[in-house]
Amino acid sequence: MPVLTPNPSYSQTLRLQLAKQPGALAKVVACIADAGGNLSDISLIESTSQATVQEFVVEASSENHAQAIVCAVQELPGIHFIDAQDRTFALHRGGKISVESRSPLKTQDQLSRGYTPGVGRVCQAIHKDPSKAFEYTIKPHTVAIVTDGSAVLGLGNIGPLAALPVMEGKAMIFKEFAGLDAFPVCLDTQDSDAIVEAVRQIAPVFGAVNLEDISAPRCFEIEARLKKLLDIPVFHDDQHGTAVVLLAALLNALALTGKDLSQIKIVFNGVGAAGVACTEMLLAAGATHIVGCDRTGAIYSGRTANMNSVKEHYAQITNPKGEQGTLAEVLHKADVFVGLSGPGLVTLADIQGMAQDPIVFALANPIPEIAPEECGPYVAVMATGRSDYPNQINNALAYPGIFKGAMKCRATEINEAMKQAAAQAIAQLIPPSERTAQYIIPSVFDPRVVPAVAQAVEKAARATGVACS
Amino acid sequence: MPVLTPNPSYSQTLRLQLAKQPGALAKVVACIADAGGNLSDISLIESTSQATVQEFVVEASSENHAQAIVCAVQELPGIHFIDAQDRTFALHRGGKISVESRSPLKTQDQLSRGYTPGVGRVCQAIHKDPSKAFEYTIKPHTVAIVTDGSAVLGLGNIGPLAALPVMEGKAMIFKEFAGLDAFPVCLDTQDSDAIVEAVRQIAPVFGAVNLEDISAPRCFEIEARLKKLLDIPVFHDDQHGTAVVLLAALLNALALTGKDLSQIKIVFNGVGAAGVACTEMLLAAGATHIVGCDRTGAIYSGRTANMNSVKEHYAQITNPKGEQGTLAEVLHKADVFVGLSGPGLVTLADIQGMAQDPIVFALANPIPEIAPEECGPYVAVMATGRSDYPNQINNALAYPGIFKGAMKCRATEINEAMKQAAAQAIAQLIPPSERTAQYIIPSVFDPRVVPAVAQAVEKAARATGVACS
Repeated sequence: MPVLTPNPSYSQTLRLQLAKQPGALAKVVACIADAGGNLSDISLIESTSQATVQEFVVEASSENHAQAIVCAVQELPGIHFIDAQDRTFALHRGGKISVESRSPLKTQDQLSRGYTPGVGRVCQAIHKDPSKAFEYTIKPHTVAIVTDGSAVLGLGNIGPLAALPVMEGKAMIFKEFAGLDAFPVCLDTQDSDAIVEAVRQIAPVFGAVNLEDISAPRCFEIEARLKKLLDIPVFHDDQHGTAVVLLAALLNALALTGKDLSQIKIVFNGVGAAGVACTEMLLAAGATHIVGCDRTGAIYSGRTANMNSVKEHYAQITNPKGEQGTLAEVLHKADVFVGLSGPGLVTLADIQGMAQDPIVFALANPIPEIAPEECGPYVAVMATGRSDYPNQINNALAYPGIFKGAMKCRATEINEAMKQAAAQAIAQLIPPSERTAQYIIPSVFDPRVVPAVAQAVEKAARATGVACS
Repeated sequence: MPVLTPNPSYSQTLRLQLAKQPGALAKVVACIADAGGNLSDISLIESTSQATVQEFVVEASSENHAQAIVCAVQELPGIHFIDAQDRTFALHRGGKISVESRSPLKTQDQLSRGYTPGVGRVCQAIHKDPSKAFEYTIKPHTVAIVTDGSAVLGLGNIGPLAALPVMEGKAMIFKEFAGLDAFPVCLDTQDSDAIVEAVRQIAPVFGAVNLEDISAPRCFEIEARLKKLLDIPVFHDDQHGTAVVLLAALLNALALTGKDLSQIKIVFNGVGAAGVACTEMLLAAGATHIVGCDRTGAIYSGRTANMNSVKEHYAQITNPKGEQGTLAEVLHKADVFVGLSGPGLVTLADIQGMAQDPIVFALANPIPEIAPEECGPYVAVMATGRSDYPNQINNALAYPGIFKGAMKCRATEINEAMKQAAAQAIAQLIPPSERTAQYIIPSVFDPRVVPAVAQAVEKAARATGVACS
């Protein structure tokens, strides 16, 4: 299992009282360093003639590691340990989003217009002309983030309630990155028919539906049926968000290594929701030689073990040479590895058997198929799904701008042309002169990303005739 | 049909350019007054040596009236009419609520904790112990406002999309009055089974369910089934919110007229959702002589025309003397009239036939069963559902505090004791010394209301053993 570097998700705030003596602070800093912690912030809370109270923000690599750091600091002589707070749980206390009123309700005048009796006039106007809902309600800028909790991050089927923090986080990103209002819809059912019907029923309030963390193969059917039923965009982010960003990163990685998408061999490990969508999107962009693997090995036409209708389809559209064998075998001399599977599923030896200048996208979250620390020296370009390494393949580069662009022109769907346009827009934000192995994809904090993606998506929507305004 | 006074729901902002001449402003003010408009605000927008631009906020009594005022002003000589804006529609532009992030996402540290990978730790903690959702998600303070759009205000079955402005208004009130986060769930189905199932499915995100504007008799069954299915409060506001406020107002009206709830005759017109719930709540509070009427007249045991299971039940619990006849007939010598029906359904003659010191609650919205202007002089106490008359029976006096109190102690339901406590708390905010015919119920802007109701409801929840924290 790869060892992770200390990171903010396991960070704590330690509150300590230090005697005012030379070297007191140095002792704490050294202790944290010796324990392997990453000290990212020190704040002075209060100071008297004899002592100071200071807060130390310390990143760790796991909960056990965080606990070990606390124990080490607690044993320091001359230091009074006040408390330690887990910063990730602290940020979640009370939830991460709120519903706010856009105008005050302090007077009878405001209440009579915002609520009864005035609101009745607006209801009647919408009843007469439903398109007025796009003018006088939250619908045009509000996204449903729908999950059944069946495939949450790398955690599996933890159910709708435990999935809620992810959906709240996604709503934060929609607001902070794209100015869109999004609300979690965590459904207490994992029956495809029931999910389709529930989403159809709640749709009036929303201008778009973001499907999230729904397990394959159900997610394919649910998305396809909802796209037919609804006149607003339905987008399964785990599929298409990942695919858009992956394609953007791959375009730049290939440019860097001088390879051509149509000539290279790409091996996928993991043919779940993201694996299938990424494969389809790379094919649509011009890739010709993709081989997908699951636990059983390469997927090929005619394989009988561990197949289903999705894999049958996958076998048809990929693996033109009908390759068989293990992941290690088909990865031999491949140009690109895309991992959308689980932690530690690729060995360094596998990577070392790839073609010259291999491109490795180890996207399993939170723990990659192979750690950048381990294989970094042996590859031309490396990307992961994590924010604490370079080249993060982060859906947040795609979906805020895609929804913003689609909703701005009231697109009825998000089609292939819109997704390809989004990938191109992301890739093109890095000009050739700035492209390096550590920089094939912009940061999610790059303020150019959302406007560029939104503009490209809106343009593609108009060009393909799916825009309504 | 009663004629309404000019009110904010039909108000407009007129933007006019006036020559800087003595009397120019007076001319506009006089013109608006002559046209029957109510001028509530004048603002100076800009001023040059020759002219001023001013905005006039003018209330009207209908859309036609508002238009007539505009025409009159447009014909004024020496005035340049710039434009007129409908203030109710202006307030609704873009919708009335937003979803906001409770903490910023400006840094990798914040993103790594609020979203992946850190969020996965919180998901796992909730998966292990679901009660942690009340600590680390929006659930404990988030209300689903659920409608199917089948009985919206007095507008009838206008459907889920046209109902959205009401639900947004309700969410505003939850936030502004009680600090709770509420989100509209407008369901595109009017099948009771489907509604029950949809609400059950979306429940994980919410700490309580407010059913709204669902037509009778379906609302009774839907509420009863959801109360059994869910472990969070389910409260049909049109029933119980109205009932709580009605009881509060009636307690003070009776005190004012020196009558006793157990001795008086109360006649209801309208036995829909609110009528049934109000009747049940008054009975639970000690009323003994209630007669309900529908279009067919008095409801009594053994009536055969225009009955259903709800009315059969209603006949069983009311009308102890088995009175028959029209509304006018049973209203003869009654002490209290409660209208929860439609505009203009009671005549002045009917009211004049009531017992001494009659109490008239004409609650049809937006247009009452009889206008206060018409019957005011002939009654001891008059109340309506409108904010622009005294004694507004407004659910907003009840539900923000009821939900706040129930959710604060994580009540599993809102029971009769909690509702009765809410009514008592509202009534008691007006001490005997302040009670008048114009002041039997506090204003929705009275800042004492929500804390008093919440505290009383929480206490009753604890006393009846339904509180979980």
